[in-house]
Amino acid sequence: MHGNKPLILVTNDDGFQAKGIRKLAALMRPLGEVVVISTQQVMSAKGHSITTTPTLTAILVKEEPGYREYVCNGTPVDCIKIGYQWLLDRLPDLVVSGINHGSNASTNVIYSGTMAAAIEACMDGIDAIGFSLDCYDPEADFDHLDDYITAITRNVLEEGLPDGVCLNVNFPKRSEAPIRGLRICRQAKAKWIEAYTQCEDEKGGSCLKLGGQFVYEDSGEDTDYWALQNNYVSLVPTQFDLTATSHLQSMHRFETILESYEN
Amino acid sequence: MHGNKPLILVTNDDGFQAKGIRKLAALMRPLGEVVVISTQQVMSAKGHSITTTPTLTAILVKEEPGYREYVCNGTPVDCIKIGYQWLLDRLPDLVVSGINHGSNASTNVIYSGTMAAAIEACMDGIDAIGFSLDCYDPEADFDHLDDYITAITRNVLEEGLPDGVCLNVNFPKRSEAPIRGLRICRQAKAKWIEAYTQCEDEKGGSCLKLGGQFVYEDSGEDTDYWALQNNYVSLVPTQFDLTATSHLQSMHRFETILESYEN
Repeated sequence: MHGNKPLILVTNDDGFQAKGIRKLAALMRPLGEVVVISTQQVMSAKGHSITTTPTLTAILVKEEPGYREYVCNGTPVDCIKIGYQWLLDRLPDLVVSGINHGSNASTNVIYSGTMAAAIEACMDGIDAIGFSLDCYDPEADFDHLDDYITAITRNVLEEGLPDGVCLNVNFPKRSEAPIRGLRICRQAKAKWIEAYTQCEDEKGGSCLKLGGQFVYEDSGEDTDYWALQNNYVSLVPTQFDLTATSHLQSMHRFETILESYEN
Repeated sequence: MHGNKPLILVTNDDGFQAKGIRKLAALMRPLGEVVVISTQQVMSAKGHSITTTPTLTAILVKEEPGYREYVCNGTPVDCIKIGYQWLLDRLPDLVVSGINHGSNASTNVIYSGTMAAAIEACMDGIDAIGFSLDCYDPEADFDHLDDYITAITRNVLEEGLPDGVCLNVNFPKRSEAPIRGLRICRQAKAKWIEAYTQCEDEKGGSCLKLGGQFVYEDSGEDTDYWALQNNYVSLVPTQFDLTATSHLQSMHRFETILESYEN
């Protein structure tokens, strides 16, 4: 190992060639020993999917002092699991995922491979951060994020995160105005309205292609979506306990459900 | 349409031939107009994955009065999206998913394609229930669930669910003792400890296969895992808002993050 440096595992869902993971890996190198395990292919919108067939590989593609890089043919969550259950000899101190090309604010977090990787690490008790930029362009400019990413990461390395909580950090697209600051946010209410179109598949057969429109349904100024629209960085503390705690009481009607319907 | 009968969309992640979806579809038919959109292949552990390539198809395989059945080559969430954005002429009144061959209690909900389908419907404002049996056997006995599934579904059709909440219902495996009742639960704390093993892929190359052990880390008697272990049906009200609300306050340290690290 390399002295007392923290061990940082870097992954993403846009593939190993993506500009976003190149930037994130470069920003992590001064902060610790870095192991990158990126996806071989684009795995956007693969959610918390894992590979259960015997097909997974992870190839070492680069090795330097304090830095190793692997490419894995699985999903982002596979990258995390293989990372510390197979490739590393100890649990990482931190998992960072991204920088995603595209926003994972609002309900996008549910579909996101980038955030699934962070959530997976969080489920294993490892501090984790997902970073995403509100811009899908493969050539997007990430340079305005450097100071934020370094400062957030250093803070998490030093102070840690609460048990069961990881961070969903989204950045506004670069504009002429500098970023106005960072806001602690809740996940905005929004949804995708899909519109499928009929098209041809590779063999000339008829198939459907997903399109859609993101519809914002929240008037709050405390949401991640609002923050991005107003040129702030959004930070949402994110959990994997899906229990709708405030609705537990109202569910008790189901406890006597068989009696209610006996006639 | 068929009078005032509710429109019920049925899906799953175990494929169209699974015994679980056959049972669920049969139980729904007396309750409404039923449209089944099952996955063509086994899509277990595909989480909230969606298909963004132009490859999706949904084939009508059966049509009777008040009943239609499609097979879709995508994920469970694709089935839901295609269901009401392409195949149906109105939103369903209810989505039911399952009956899954295997428990989706505790953190299994995060990986589950069955529950992802229910959560997707919930995100679109549609009442939704995921049903799962704590038994992976393809020939599992589902007959002890009939009364529960009918009663829960009838109740949801009549009284509805709170906005942003769907139900994760898990059933104990059939045993000699009858089910003791239904418990309202929170999602148990637990995790998978993976163990990869080296194996050969189809072409004789070296690859990794996922194995693992489910480790329960919760001593509460109010969890879904506890309920199943004690021969109760578990019902967890489940939400897609991942904001760790109780930790919003403690995150404010990040708001001044750039100032903190300027030197």
